[in-house]
Amino acid sequence: MKKIYFTPGPSQLYFTAEEHIKNALKESVPSISHRSKAYESIHQAAVESIKQLLQLPEGYHVLFTGSATEIWERTIQNLVSYESFHFVNGSFSGRFHEIAENYQINAITKKVAEGQVVKPEEVLIPESTELISITQNETSTGAAQPLEDIKTIRSAFEKPIISLDVVSSAPYIPLDYSLVDTAYFSVQKCFGLPAGLGVWIVNEKCIAKSEEKMNKNKIIGSYHSLPSMIEKSVKNQTSETPNVLGIYLLGKVANDMLTKGIEQIRRETEYKAAVLYQAFEECGQLSPFIKEEKYRSKTTLVAETKCDSSEVINLLSQKGIVLGSGYGKFKKEHIRIANFPTHSKESVELIADELVRNFK
Amino acid sequence: MKKIYFTPGPSQLYFTAEEHIKNALKESVPSISHRSKAYESIHQAAVESIKQLLQLPEGYHVLFTGSATEIWERTIQNLVSYESFHFVNGSFSGRFHEIAENYQINAITKKVAEGQVVKPEEVLIPESTELISITQNETSTGAAQPLEDIKTIRSAFEKPIISLDVVSSAPYIPLDYSLVDTAYFSVQKCFGLPAGLGVWIVNEKCIAKSEEKMNKNKIIGSYHSLPSMIEKSVKNQTSETPNVLGIYLLGKVANDMLTKGIEQIRRETEYKAAVLYQAFEECGQLSPFIKEEKYRSKTTLVAETKCDSSEVINLLSQKGIVLGSGYGKFKKEHIRIANFPTHSKESVELIADELVRNFK
Repeated sequence: MKKIYFTPGPSQLYFTAEEHIKNALKESVPSISHRSKAYESIHQAAVESIKQLLQLPEGYHVLFTGSATEIWERTIQNLVSYESFHFVNGSFSGRFHEIAENYQINAITKKVAEGQVVKPEEVLIPESTELISITQNETSTGAAQPLEDIKTIRSAFEKPIISLDVVSSAPYIPLDYSLVDTAYFSVQKCFGLPAGLGVWIVNEKCIAKSEEKMNKNKIIGSYHSLPSMIEKSVKNQTSETPNVLGIYLLGKVANDMLTKGIEQIRRETEYKAAVLYQAFEECGQLSPFIKEEKYRSKTTLVAETKCDSSEVINLLSQKGIVLGSGYGKFKKEHIRIANFPTHSKESVELIADELVRNFK
Repeated sequence: MKKIYFTPGPSQLYFTAEEHIKNALKESVPSISHRSKAYESIHQAAVESIKQLLQLPEGYHVLFTGSATEIWERTIQNLVSYESFHFVNGSFSGRFHEIAENYQINAITKKVAEGQVVKPEEVLIPESTELISITQNETSTGAAQPLEDIKTIRSAFEKPIISLDVVSSAPYIPLDYSLVDTAYFSVQKCFGLPAGLGVWIVNEKCIAKSEEKMNKNKIIGSYHSLPSMIEKSVKNQTSETPNVLGIYLLGKVANDMLTKGIEQIRRETEYKAAVLYQAFEECGQLSPFIKEEKYRSKTTLVAETKCDSSEVINLLSQKGIVLGSGYGKFKKEHIRIANFPTHSKESVELIADELVRNFK
């Protein structure tokens, strides 16, 4: 039996991905030169599909890296000279803070317990802060920062760059990207693609900041400095030989999502999330880890388990369903279920049924 | 007609790659968690096959990055505090030097014209140099630094780290890796795999140097600092979600090469190189760009063309063969032909016949 992966990234491939991989092989996509017109078309198609799918405003650029982790590092190298401010409520938001510290930045945090989100009204951000980092969806806990909070922060802080982690929420989350200056995701989450590609969205303010840093003779990296990346990106190229196959697949899957319609994807995501949270509520053995409904992620659903979470995981595994365990210290106490565009309503209903039947 | 790619990277996929990709999809390799036992087995298999294929000495580690370009940057960040020395004889060796300058390192070069190699007896390397960079095979020109030169440099300079670019020569080149401290390649060259994965080989001296730099409170990067990479690598893991599919494929293809036998691969490479250089000599319109035979690459063969090189490229294209154009300023004056393990003797003989018939 071939299993269906509901792990929150890497996860189940998007249902068209396998066919696109086979077409890529037929078309010799992995063999073409990254300096050829053929590559430039692939690059441009991916960028344009992403821009359209996310409805990026004019002046926003789409860049490619090896991972979202790399984007954390490039963000610090290019956009911060002295001070950054991090909303921290779990392992991934915390990891970005650590990377800033690795670069000897004065990296300030407002930290709340796992399962919470930082409330904008409770943060004090110094005048000197150059970048504010927010995690829309903390994949380790399933806590989501509401979109109203992003608006609140933007209106309170016009000057600093706002960086938003949409790693496991794009393209589901109906974000107005003009509220942030930079955002990023990796393709193995909602896009259902093989890992090894990060997507970095930046606006002109980011480019100007990076150039300003460079002009002050500060180190901003090399082949993946923002000016180098932009210089190549306007020609639909990259500085290095990139993950050509990954970029090809991203363009194809983003285009499939456009054909399906983002509104349809959002409706389905919300329906499936409702089914699963309902099941968590009905099971005596389970309860949603995020107590307040408005902070619950619709794409990464986390339940506390009264039993060892491996009991739940093993039972579903027998039905051909792979769930995620809790992250880090919650390994045995949580299950995490990805609710990505590739996950069908039917398989989500199956999970809900099995949970209710067995863990009532 | 499906074309055969003789471009020097990306190039033709290794002849077993497509089958391995299909198996990977069957086995859900792109969906498994990078923190699972299943991933650790894939990682370990790739590392062990590379160690065996390249006959790495005890104490040498195999690490994964997004590209060989990234390895240039990580090398500078981790292994150099003040001064590096670069043998430069073309665009790629020159690019590493530029990256060192981007990091404000005193990056000294010994530069010779394209088509030449730097002669070890002609370099003066200061006592203060921390790292010597040599490019075994300068892919832009087809000039190869003889293995005796690596020996000469190692015996003359015990203290500095020696970094060897084997991007387009491994695993063909019968290098004794104990002569160098670090070496690197990307998988879209001789390994015939989709781009998006770099392989970084480091010994204990590199790790110690990086730790020394860190202990002096200098910045050595973050998730891809050498200590972070080693910490994960000993557990057969990576800091970030890596290109899992790429690592799986690398392990499979390296294993296929072991089964075929590296000696057989080397004999075939030498036979095919001889056939092509012979054709270059026989064609009045062509001549090997590298004049002295001992400096000619066996894996990236470059010919000067009396006509516009696009004439040669277009003619072969009609026969289903994709050759590379010259690199950079040599675009119209050179052809470049990859001679990688996947390229069959028959197709190389076909290229040689066509060249001799049409460009006599």
